[in-house]
Amino acid sequence: MTAMNTQQQMMEQMGQWRITVWEEEHYQGRRCEFHNMECQNIMDREFQKIRSIKVESGAWVGYEYPEFQGQQFILEKGDYPCYESWSGNCGYRTEHMLSFRPIKCANHSDSKISLYECNNFQGGKFEMCDDYPSLQAMGWCSKEVYSMKVNSGAWVAYQFPGYRGYQYIMERDRHQGEYRNYNEYGTQAQTNQIQSIRRIQH
Amino acid sequence: MTAMNTQQQMMEQMGQWRITVWEEEHYQGRRCEFHNMECQNIMDREFQKIRSIKVESGAWVGYEYPEFQGQQFILEKGDYPCYESWSGNCGYRTEHMLSFRPIKCANHSDSKISLYECNNFQGGKFEMCDDYPSLQAMGWCSKEVYSMKVNSGAWVAYQFPGYRGYQYIMERDRHQGEYRNYNEYGTQAQTNQIQSIRRIQH
Repeated sequence: MTAMNTQQQMMEQMGQWRITVWEEEHYQGRRCEFHNMECQNIMDREFQKIRSIKVESGAWVGYEYPEFQGQQFILEKGDYPCYESWSGNCGYRTEHMLSFRPIKCANHSDSKISLYECNNFQGGKFEMCDDYPSLQAMGWCSKEVYSMKVNSGAWVAYQFPGYRGYQYIMERDRHQGEYRNYNEYGTQAQTNQIQSIRRIQH
Repeated sequence: MTAMNTQQQMMEQMGQWRITVWEEEHYQGRRCEFHNMECQNIMDREFQKIRSIKVESGAWVGYEYPEFQGQQFILEKGDYPCYESWSGNCGYRTEHMLSFRPIKCANHSDSKISLYECNNFQGGKFEMCDDYPSLQAMGWCSKEVYSMKVNSGAWVAYQFPGYRGYQYIMERDRHQGEYRNYNEYGTQAQTNQIQSIRRIQH
């Protein structure tokens, strides 16, 4: 592919991210639209918090705190009428989402990630290019993953089987795709527990 | 395939379902193992409720109430230390799971389901044989699905994008695979809202 083609493709991709957020549940009250840009702190727009969301296009990641800190929430195209619809984690209810940003994804079929049994990409390794609602059903012998390397695309890893619990967004384009231990999975990560994982797609 | 082979295969499959349930969180207190059989009411085993689960093999579906009534919970191989880990629905916390049963799945690549825009398999139709974390991203124009027909395998449909909210188990081997309106999705279903759907696998 020529440089021109690559740039064209990137420009086309740049049109892909659109999200609308509301201050109240069920799309009521103050609202704000974002196209192709991140929001470091919704409180700068005089929001107290975000209570409902519509993703019109692209994939986004929301964060509990300003500047992309705290719990992470994968947001794909669709309607999110209340906090519960995007949190997916019932155990820990702060009900905040204060910053968010677009995610770049690979073509769905090109996504690739490696999981490791030990920190720093040591120990047994498994390469994946598909979605796994249960890593243990796939043959991973533990309920924990100690490090991960994203070779291509963007992924979301989950604490529990069936895409439940804490969500961790893993991207080729951030962090150089390298997550050496659970501290690098996210600022809210407190354990290595990862039991399901899937690709993110537009 | 000969009848003998089919029977052999079924016998092999019959060995596939194993689950252990505990009365307390984090695998403490009274425990009970089930192999290849359903449990209509865990209170018959002198449990008050189930507070943690390990699925050793196969896919299972748990229910809020006895005799497979109320909220449904897909349970795939892995560790579920507390109610929050299998509920995935933060909006509605009864914290009960009182009955459960094994699910028969197709080979993962053979699963097929049709979604319809209207009740009773009327209106626009979409045939799927893959997982979709966002039906809207796939081209489905609404946040609702009015009827579904399972041609093969077993599926789980969700209220919100990204496999969140209420879970509805849809099977070829129950209900003749036919779900004519949301009342047939499950006893807890109160709307047609379905925004993500995926195959169930062993």
